[in-house]
Amino acid sequence: MDFKIDKHISGQFNQELEQIMSHVLDMGGIVEQQISQSLAAISSLDAKLAGQVVENDRKINAYETTIDEECARIIAKRQPAAIDLRIVLAIAKTIADLERIGDEACRMVKPALESYNREERQFLVDLDHMGQQVLTMFNKVLDALARMDSEAAYEVYKMDKKIDKTYEAITRQLMTYMMEDPRAIPKIMDVIWATRSLERIGDRCQNISEHVIYLIKGKDVRHTSREHIEKMLGV
Amino acid sequence: MDFKIDKHISGQFNQELEQIMSHVLDMGGIVEQQISQSLAAISSLDAKLAGQVVENDRKINAYETTIDEECARIIAKRQPAAIDLRIVLAIAKTIADLERIGDEACRMVKPALESYNREERQFLVDLDHMGQQVLTMFNKVLDALARMDSEAAYEVYKMDKKIDKTYEAITRQLMTYMMEDPRAIPKIMDVIWATRSLERIGDRCQNISEHVIYLIKGKDVRHTSREHIEKMLGV
Repeated sequence: MDFKIDKHISGQFNQELEQIMSHVLDMGGIVEQQISQSLAAISSLDAKLAGQVVENDRKINAYETTIDEECARIIAKRQPAAIDLRIVLAIAKTIADLERIGDEACRMVKPALESYNREERQFLVDLDHMGQQVLTMFNKVLDALARMDSEAAYEVYKMDKKIDKTYEAITRQLMTYMMEDPRAIPKIMDVIWATRSLERIGDRCQNISEHVIYLIKGKDVRHTSREHIEKMLGV
Repeated sequence: MDFKIDKHISGQFNQELEQIMSHVLDMGGIVEQQISQSLAAISSLDAKLAGQVVENDRKINAYETTIDEECARIIAKRQPAAIDLRIVLAIAKTIADLERIGDEACRMVKPALESYNREERQFLVDLDHMGQQVLTMFNKVLDALARMDSEAAYEVYKMDKKIDKTYEAITRQLMTYMMEDPRAIPKIMDVIWATRSLERIGDRCQNISEHVIYLIKGKDVRHTSREHIEKMLGV
């Protein structure tokens, strides 16, 4: 994925920042793969693949530590101000969210270690459906970050509401299954936790979209209303 | 709570940083109150108090936005390096964790809106017990931050394991209750979510303890082993 930042900033800072951003996008690529592998492990009940997902989390953690150091170094060395500083701070926050998304991707694989009868398989189909929605959201936010596109980021921001609705519908359904078949409760709880992890990934994607908007517009849009954000973006 | 930072840093930067840190500690005080009010609302089934907790979350969000701006301003103006920069970056991460702890404190009040028979009240007693553990952990990490005490921070770091064990025991117990009385599932699920929120608060306290250690020692201790941290701290 290309990262076009040169129109925003100036000087030698540019090159170093581009390198940091390319690491962020690499990190994002691995996180995306982790989410999709985790979903694949669950839908094919592949315990081995689930194990690989858990194993791979180390890579994401290493990226976070490295990029954090790069951010501290560039601030100390280049003493950026205004937009330059905003970019670095937004990157630092973004990688924290990416790392937590990686944690959720690991945490949610647990249903892959269970077995399900034909009726119970429906849980997994619903979970996968929600997972694909979340994966699309993640993909779009990474793209908005790479292109520094605040309007695309705002599209992602709005997607979270739909994810939350899907989440509520699925957990309601799963609670009904638990009431119908109490012996399946522990198994269904694992599916509920996985659903919750996906919902949290959606929240984190929304956070990242806020960082992108902050970065471009210089306005902190966390804790503000949609109307306010729309006015600011002129959409 | 007093904040003694002057031995670490120099110059006029000191005064401005002290002010930011005093805002962080104010924010921490409100978050602490939110956790304890949320627990009180649940154990006395006080829906009005629960509503106040939800309402108060705005204050925490406002603190986060303000302190974030102060951090960006001090970096741009003072161009800090080394320990000075580390302190600012650690503060920025700490307030993100504090804000999320505030979110969890709101999220967990839901059981306060239900009614419980005598047997079901036991759920709430266990929840409150875990809540008091978490509150102690929160209190200690805020204290370690105020005193810039990396050893105290490491004590907090280790507490998370105990919280995780309590969490597992309680959720196992609650799943047993669900199996015994499937009609109570929706109500018990609310208690499970509250338990989960407390577990997440414990994780966040551990994050903050890592930021404190980073701040003092200049070493990123996330994703490292306990042995490694102990060697570094010489404990």
